Amino acid sequence: MKIEVIENVLKYNKNHADKNRILFKENNILVLNILSSPGAGKTSLIIETIKRLKNKKRIGVIEGDISSTYDAEKIKKFTPDVIQINTGGTCHLNASMIAEAINKLKLKNLDIIIIENVGNLICPVGYDLGENYKILLSSVNEGDDKPVKYPPAFIKSNLILLNKMDLIEFSDFDESFFERKVSELNPDSKIIKISCKTGTGLDKWIDWVIAAAGFTGFKGTQ
Amino acid sequence: MKIEVIENVLKYNKNHADKNRILFKENNILVLNILSSPGAGKTSLIIETIKRLKNKKRIGVIEGDISSTYDAEKIKKFTPDVIQINTGGTCHLNASMIAEAINKLKLKNLDIIIIENVGNLICPVGYDLGENYKILLSSVNEGDDKPVKYPPAFIKSNLILLNKMDLIEFSDFDESFFERKVSELNPDSKIIKISCKTGTGLDKWIDWVIAAAGFTGFKGTQ
Repeated sequence: MKIEVIENVLKYNKNHADKNRILFKENNILVLNILSSPGAGKTSLIIETIKRLKNKKRIGVIEGDISSTYDAEKIKKFTPDVIQINTGGTCHLNASMIAEAINKLKLKNLDIIIIENVGNLICPVGYDLGENYKILLSSVNEGDDKPVKYPPAFIKSNLILLNKMDLIEFSDFDESFFERKVSELNPDSKIIKISCKTGTGLDKWIDWVIAAAGFTGFKGTQ
Repeated sequence: MKIEVIENVLKYNKNHADKNRILFKENNILVLNILSSPGAGKTSLIIETIKRLKNKKRIGVIEGDISSTYDAEKIKKFTPDVIQINTGGTCHLNASMIAEAINKLKLKNLDIIIIENVGNLICPVGYDLGENYKILLSSVNEGDDKPVKYPPAFIKSNLILLNKMDLIEFSDFDESFFERKVSELNPDSKIIKISCKTGTGLDKWIDWVIAAAGFTGFKGTQ
């Protein structure tokens, strides 16, 4: 009975995700779904990305939180196209929440939508939102064992960003252990090491975004 | 229908939690349920606690993870009384998982049980395990906005430990903002600032544990 309920929830989600995907494709929008633990730096990553692509690409943001508009207010200083979703306690976004949010965005004006999922390494992994890519943002301070402890998040993500590299000298983080464990779980995954604070590696991330956007039939600069 | 399922799940959980609570009380065991984000330092906290109470109190540990025995193996070096629960993907421990785990522990020998919940600031909050206290371990690197972003975890916890204080000089963490937000949500809560790496504040934490143990009809040293 419990399993049946979960199956129905996931089937319902898949239907909405497929509809979102069609809408994103029709509007030539690249959609990135950012997953991470609380405090790994999702909001900072989004702000740095908007800053670096300003005057080139118009970026909309969908902010997921269990409550508050704290992050949306921060991001609003950098782009007017922000929608906050409050899940009311639910530990992940789902595709019908995204469907509602994109009704409020002017899709014709946007090149990229970045979805900041609820801070959680478990629940968001199973929910397809209709995105092109899942990006997992891990941070040095969480430790090098996160792939071992939370395998599904690493298996399902298309790209791993390792943030807070500016703090690596003060930690016991073993880069080669982390890389080996990620590669065992997901041999196709790529890791980009970044620091949203110092800017380290963000050029590589921006190159990745630009290349990814190319594959979705990008609108080009406005 | 969905709400009814959730209500039944919580009622079922409460029954098991009450049974666990009786068993813990009969055996004069202090039970601490540690909640945190992934990588905030739960396992390090448990190891440091065992080290400091060695030869005084016998501590059993219940390790919760979605998969792997990685943390249990680390802790096994410091106490033989460790049980690993793998939730198989579920984002929190529940009281019936704990009931099964305590069957495998020799309760008569133990003074304290520390439960390391699954790394997650959302799901574990609603599940009573039969513990005496919920301890929320937050870390400096997650940022000072965690009370704003994850209010229920802060509201429901009896004690907040702020870990990784050794890294505060390299972060933008505003201690007074954090303290104010915690106190707005939970006026009765206490914050102890610690570093499991340098030992800062751990004496205060150990004093808290000893005092808490006193109230449960502690067995005393063995």
